[in-house]
Amino acid sequence: MINKDRFARLLSPKSIVVFGSVGADHAIRESRKFGFQGEIWAVHPKRDEIEGLKCYRSVDELPGVPDAAYVAVNADAAIKIVGDLDRVGCGGAVLYASGFSEVGEEGAARQKILVEAAGNMPIIGPNCYGMLNCIDRAVLWPDQHGCKAVEKGVAIITQSGNIGLNMTMQQRGLPLAFMFTMGNQAAVSIADVMDALLDDDRVTAIGLHIEGISDVGEFDRVSRRALEKKIPIIALKSGRSEAAAKIAMSHTSSLTGSDALFDALFRRVGIARVDTVPEFLETLKLVSVIGPLSGNRVASMSCSGGEAGMMADLIERHQVCFPAMGNDHVADVQATLSDYVHVANPLDYHTFIWGKPDQLEATFAAMIKGGEYDATMLLLDWPNYDGANPEAWDAAMNALARASKKTGFKGIVVASMAECLPDHAIKACVDQGVAPMIGLDRCLGALGHAHEIGKAFDRPVPNPIATTTGEGAEGRIIDEWRSKRSLLSHGLSVPEGALVTSATEAVAAAEALGYPVVVKAVGSHLAHKTEMGAVKLNLTDGNAVDAAVTDMAGLSDKFMVEKMVPGFVAELIVGISRDDQFGPTLVLGAGGILVELLQDSATLLLPTDRETVRNALQGLKSYKLLEGYRGKPAGDLEAVIDSVMAVAAFAEANKETLQELDINPLMVCEAGKGAVAADALIRIAE
Amino acid sequence: MINKDRFARLLSPKSIVVFGSVGADHAIRESRKFGFQGEIWAVHPKRDEIEGLKCYRSVDELPGVPDAAYVAVNADAAIKIVGDLDRVGCGGAVLYASGFSEVGEEGAARQKILVEAAGNMPIIGPNCYGMLNCIDRAVLWPDQHGCKAVEKGVAIITQSGNIGLNMTMQQRGLPLAFMFTMGNQAAVSIADVMDALLDDDRVTAIGLHIEGISDVGEFDRVSRRALEKKIPIIALKSGRSEAAAKIAMSHTSSLTGSDALFDALFRRVGIARVDTVPEFLETLKLVSVIGPLSGNRVASMSCSGGEAGMMADLIERHQVCFPAMGNDHVADVQATLSDYVHVANPLDYHTFIWGKPDQLEATFAAMIKGGEYDATMLLLDWPNYDGANPEAWDAAMNALARASKKTGFKGIVVASMAECLPDHAIKACVDQGVAPMIGLDRCLGALGHAHEIGKAFDRPVPNPIATTTGEGAEGRIIDEWRSKRSLLSHGLSVPEGALVTSATEAVAAAEALGYPVVVKAVGSHLAHKTEMGAVKLNLTDGNAVDAAVTDMAGLSDKFMVEKMVPGFVAELIVGISRDDQFGPTLVLGAGGILVELLQDSATLLLPTDRETVRNALQGLKSYKLLEGYRGKPAGDLEAVIDSVMAVAAFAEANKETLQELDINPLMVCEAGKGAVAADALIRIAE
Repeated sequence: MINKDRFARLLSPKSIVVFGSVGADHAIRESRKFGFQGEIWAVHPKRDEIEGLKCYRSVDELPGVPDAAYVAVNADAAIKIVGDLDRVGCGGAVLYASGFSEVGEEGAARQKILVEAAGNMPIIGPNCYGMLNCIDRAVLWPDQHGCKAVEKGVAIITQSGNIGLNMTMQQRGLPLAFMFTMGNQAAVSIADVMDALLDDDRVTAIGLHIEGISDVGEFDRVSRRALEKKIPIIALKSGRSEAAAKIAMSHTSSLTGSDALFDALFRRVGIARVDTVPEFLETLKLVSVIGPLSGNRVASMSCSGGEAGMMADLIERHQVCFPAMGNDHVADVQATLSDYVHVANPLDYHTFIWGKPDQLEATFAAMIKGGEYDATMLLLDWPNYDGANPEAWDAAMNALARASKKTGFKGIVVASMAECLPDHAIKACVDQGVAPMIGLDRCLGALGHAHEIGKAFDRPVPNPIATTTGEGAEGRIIDEWRSKRSLLSHGLSVPEGALVTSATEAVAAAEALGYPVVVKAVGSHLAHKTEMGAVKLNLTDGNAVDAAVTDMAGLSDKFMVEKMVPGFVAELIVGISRDDQFGPTLVLGAGGILVELLQDSATLLLPTDRETVRNALQGLKSYKLLEGYRGKPAGDLEAVIDSVMAVAAFAEANKETLQELDINPLMVCEAGKGAVAADALIRIAE
Repeated sequence: MINKDRFARLLSPKSIVVFGSVGADHAIRESRKFGFQGEIWAVHPKRDEIEGLKCYRSVDELPGVPDAAYVAVNADAAIKIVGDLDRVGCGGAVLYASGFSEVGEEGAARQKILVEAAGNMPIIGPNCYGMLNCIDRAVLWPDQHGCKAVEKGVAIITQSGNIGLNMTMQQRGLPLAFMFTMGNQAAVSIADVMDALLDDDRVTAIGLHIEGISDVGEFDRVSRRALEKKIPIIALKSGRSEAAAKIAMSHTSSLTGSDALFDALFRRVGIARVDTVPEFLETLKLVSVIGPLSGNRVASMSCSGGEAGMMADLIERHQVCFPAMGNDHVADVQATLSDYVHVANPLDYHTFIWGKPDQLEATFAAMIKGGEYDATMLLLDWPNYDGANPEAWDAAMNALARASKKTGFKGIVVASMAECLPDHAIKACVDQGVAPMIGLDRCLGALGHAHEIGKAFDRPVPNPIATTTGEGAEGRIIDEWRSKRSLLSHGLSVPEGALVTSATEAVAAAEALGYPVVVKAVGSHLAHKTEMGAVKLNLTDGNAVDAAVTDMAGLSDKFMVEKMVPGFVAELIVGISRDDQFGPTLVLGAGGILVELLQDSATLLLPTDRETVRNALQGLKSYKLLEGYRGKPAGDLEAVIDSVMAVAAFAEANKETLQELDINPLMVCEAGKGAVAADALIRIAE
């Protein structure tokens, strides 16, 4: 167990010690240049001085107990140093040192020894680039970096040293407070770093670039802690594609896991997922400067009809909207503008007021006030060339800042091209609480993500996910009859029916149930009944039932007779699959012929609740079928949710042993008439 | 008709004359500063000098005949000047002057007079920002601009002055040769400017930012001319959304048209369509620096596993691929790298060779040579801060340039963040024939577009589209029987059947055809037959036929009896709709219940051909049904194409009068067994 107090000292050190030459000298030089205010010590077995600092020969010679150590030596030396550091009570160490699990079995053995040596002292790495702290100005980093000192800001945690390095070079107004590159995560995981950062009130948001997570339950716990503290998390996760997953596996030893399950987890705990570095940085900047959004109503203003039209096109692909303006609102804005201007959202305010600060402010304020917007964007591309005159653009930006401040709403300046948002404008925006955004599409994407996070902040924090300790197993298949009885006891509706062993019994059962009926052969060897001729549908009299059982005599000695499900409006699939990391997970989707054509499914982690299930159903393309499609009546949505909750209850009750469960199809009848599992299959470990 | 020689003089002027004060003075000053080598004259009725130039009082006083005029005066004065310029034989004029059709009816009347005054002299505008020529260095432009002089390059034509202005500020290595902002397009359309630019061999590619096109046929003609000359065209077209279309309508008087038809036109003539300014500029730059691509096989190289993983994820959303490497290729690359490196595409070459130019070049060359790639990307994010040392990055870039040059393949350097591609690197890349790209996703998007264009260059130039002169009309509905006979004569398969007027005739017809049959009431008032009870399917004997006709007696006095279409594997819709600009256009899509669930259709302009139809079908989601879905046999694709071609032939034969045509469903039988129009409806003008 990592010691929390030690981790806090590592995060915010008052003293630094460096070990090694190359990399270590850099850390000393850059920490000084960056303005680190504490003690810096160097340890080297042979050199007398590094960067003008006297070298101590060992940890024991140090004049004090260091808070943070940067270890840039070989693997064996690193193990010795880490042991010494733990012994003297150092806060924690960042291990640039390599030669551990990344180089095969021998290295993995060394890594085990390293972890033992560290005890409860946090170690970042080994085989990591380092850690940058831009608040206390500690540079435990072997290379160039582009960070500027800040008082508070965003922490980024990445599995890639190179991507971490690149991100430090951002010049787009992101207040970057911490950069962690994680290396092998021998003892300290991404979740551990997040947990420690959540204790530091100077951290306004957390950005994760991850390839996988080793302990999903712990990640879930820390993510829910972030939700409670209302710290936004943005994730750039690789591994959507199989190819990326393979690269991740080959490059680090981390588990990449099934990507859809990460999506499900991120949605559950309100982590916004992005796909590119610019989206990542823009979203972090947006939530850092103006915070998450509780709604998605956005206004757009520009002096160009062309830009307004582009915005109107782009919005369709993002999760935000430009609400239409009411008549009073239009009149208020029109009063600030020429009659030639057609007032609408997105607004093209033309150039009549360009360069006139008070008029611009009046227009912007009128636009902002009347609309109950969650954010207002002003499109501005500054001129950029030697001798460019930015005056009019600065005036427009400042007018927005004033209008936003006076109205108390959230303002955004967005440039369509990166080169058209100059440094001075970025700084002026951030100083005035306005988010300076780059790229119209990236800005709309970031707004959508800020709203995802805002919605999660407004919901109750979810329950912990039901991870399991049991690994996947082959297990055995439970036959349809017994599967249905098990699920029935958890609340699932199944057709009325009887288990029989002969044609005579079958006919008697059918008479008792009433026609039409279905006859199926029963047995755990009959997983693919239709293909095997083990299902006869729509039997309307005793002769047909008799003949059906007689035909199937070679397949089994047990048969089930069920009432046919009457008219239905949709077929769904409800299932459980098992993942070694996530345990049992729930899948909902379109059933029947639509499965592959629509590729329409949602994955939910367990436990779940009715609202989450309802949202997931509403997100399916085939939800149209449940709403009443092409003249058909609407389906019984509540009964579908009942069915899904029954399956979820079964899965939770059997979470250590359940391997697989399939309800296919769940026949959805019209509203008020229920939903019935026409087929069911369970695979479970002994 | 615009005079071509005059247009060529306007495009490449040896003399410029400016009219007016504000804007005009700017044009003089900036043309001089930019290095314009020809004569510059100023005309002003009152001022004696502007920017140190003596002012002439009128066009007639000028010491020579100007090639290009910049007219920044009021509307009435502009009309007089344009008339004078035409009379003396000026090349052409750019009209910053406003007060024409953009201000209503009175202005529209003035615009008519202006056009008459211009005669066959080309005028850009009025109400346009201006024109920039960065080759001859003529600045007919009233404001700041960020252009640099070039010897050849890209021409951008935009309907938005503001977006044109912003784009001149690009600092991303796009060789921008011309910028046209179009204003009201009174006499010179976007297609006219394109046509003129196609005569200028210094233009390497054309970028269009458009809201609509007034003459689709002319645009098609010029686009096909560009295809013949192999000049790539990239279009950023607003109006995908209804909201954008409305803004465009309110802001200019141009026609926005149906967006899907523009998509169809762009695909047909190989114009790549993009949605954002950065995509637009990146794609123009890519095709300008390395040209279109005839394939989509791409290699990616970076020193980071994190980046390789991100690339592998991103590629899934783009129209390019990272082909797997063969064994020999892997061995060749491995020989240049440490054994620790896992060689694959995307390649993470690690940092062992970082900073070593010869080794980098060897690795890059080995990677490029073995793969038959159409382009090779090297991911590089330069350090960017005060005092950053770019040496190692420059070395890697130059190694790629050398490897690309030696192997004769196309090289790309791509940075994930704009701020990490410094000016000196952009310049060095372009100078060495390597494309410097910004944004991994934007780069992949641009590669996909370059391939779209390359494919179009490799295909025969398509036929002109079948635009019509006739406007849409109400027309009259042709009943199903006659619709099917008309289409039969163009080659469509319809069920065998007979037209009858009584139950007795119907039974006789059914006996002759063989059961099962369908009976339908016939009449042009029966467009929605199923809902009206005018269709009885699957009748298996004479009694049923008799009863069906008797039941429908109130609906019509004509009936058709048709053989039921036997087993089918898919239902499609094939239809024709009519657009005032594009004339009749063909729509293909999923039929039956899938129409709205899948939202699965393709639009083609006419005339078309079998290959185009085949490609369109293959692009449908429901193509899976035609390939053989869930154990069903494959559908008769050739028969589907026959059917579509028959509909197209009918539409072309009736292009001036056909308003609407619907085959729904076209029943597709298994391969070899045909495709049959089960229902058909035609609406046609008298």
